[in-house]
Amino acid sequence: MDYYALPIAKLIEQLSKLPGIGKKTAQRLAFYILEMDPLEVEKLASSIKEAKEKIHYCKICCNLTEDEICHICSDHKRDKSTICVVEGAKDVVAMEKTREYKGLYHVLHGVISPMDNIGPDQIKVKELLKRLEDGEVKEVILATNPTVEGEATALYISKLLKPLGVKTTRIAHGIPVGGDLEYFDEVTLSKAMENRREI
Amino acid sequence: MDYYALPIAKLIEQLSKLPGIGKKTAQRLAFYILEMDPLEVEKLASSIKEAKEKIHYCKICCNLTEDEICHICSDHKRDKSTICVVEGAKDVVAMEKTREYKGLYHVLHGVISPMDNIGPDQIKVKELLKRLEDGEVKEVILATNPTVEGEATALYISKLLKPLGVKTTRIAHGIPVGGDLEYFDEVTLSKAMENRREI
Repeated sequence: MDYYALPIAKLIEQLSKLPGIGKKTAQRLAFYILEMDPLEVEKLASSIKEAKEKIHYCKICCNLTEDEICHICSDHKRDKSTICVVEGAKDVVAMEKTREYKGLYHVLHGVISPMDNIGPDQIKVKELLKRLEDGEVKEVILATNPTVEGEATALYISKLLKPLGVKTTRIAHGIPVGGDLEYFDEVTLSKAMENRREI
Repeated sequence: MDYYALPIAKLIEQLSKLPGIGKKTAQRLAFYILEMDPLEVEKLASSIKEAKEKIHYCKICCNLTEDEICHICSDHKRDKSTICVVEGAKDVVAMEKTREYKGLYHVLHGVISPMDNIGPDQIKVKELLKRLEDGEVKEVILATNPTVEGEATALYISKLLKPLGVKTTRIAHGIPVGGDLEYFDEVTLSKAMENRREI
């Protein structure tokens, strides 16, 4: 690393801690930043600090927000009887882009993963249960990812919800639209067969 | 963009200005940063600002440095009679990693590219000529990239240097070590043939 002046080496080190950014990409980004307009660099650095400082969890759904309550929870037009449970804040964005779902969300901020020492207490399960106390919620849609951890988390939550009498559903697994049968794995295919419906 | 809170949208916008980082990657990075340890975020932001503030061009070779004169120019063990001319600071790092070259460098910070409105005055050519005034330099190695612009820049500089009586050389073009003949384009192959040497 002594090919670089210390501030460059530090910048490369920090950048390479980001996901999907290796040493080479970090080096390229660092040199790009050094040639950038100083004002733009200032904007980049302050946008990082500002986002981290201003953004926190919504008091209700744990989504990322600037305000106390996020814009979805505070929207009176949303259907307050349905909660869609997702792993992360980016899943909310993905779901919102469909413009189909009109209910509320609950962001777990992780999945149960014993291998990584993440149990139910490390994710926002307690906060979800609290939201169900007043009986206003009629359905909880479990939309965690179809990974081993996502499935386990969905199963865990569904077991907690059963005694509460709330309808609990899981998003469908199958062949994505535009997908080609021959390229999908056996598990996806058998899920697609299992969940077939009459047309 | 109204799926995101404003500070998140701003962060995504700033990140997506970096090279090779599209909207999707910027979004992934932004959400990662928001979940990072606040201390690490602070380190990332300040490393960007600090690098930009502290790093400037070496007064002699225009390489990026924290000091007035870079560590290569101020190293008494380096051969002061040879200058290797490169396009950018990252080329110096690439060259240094070979541990073969013991001379000095000159960083142009760009190449002549009429399409992008970059002429000889926009890159550090004047600074190179100034270094040749005292007659200490015996050889200038032109190591710009083998692109159209890189070649044109090398040609342009070589024409400027000819009347000064300084030996001017160009790095060799050919098949890279470990390369496979069939995968290289005709120009590379004909360059490799043209520059063949007796063994």
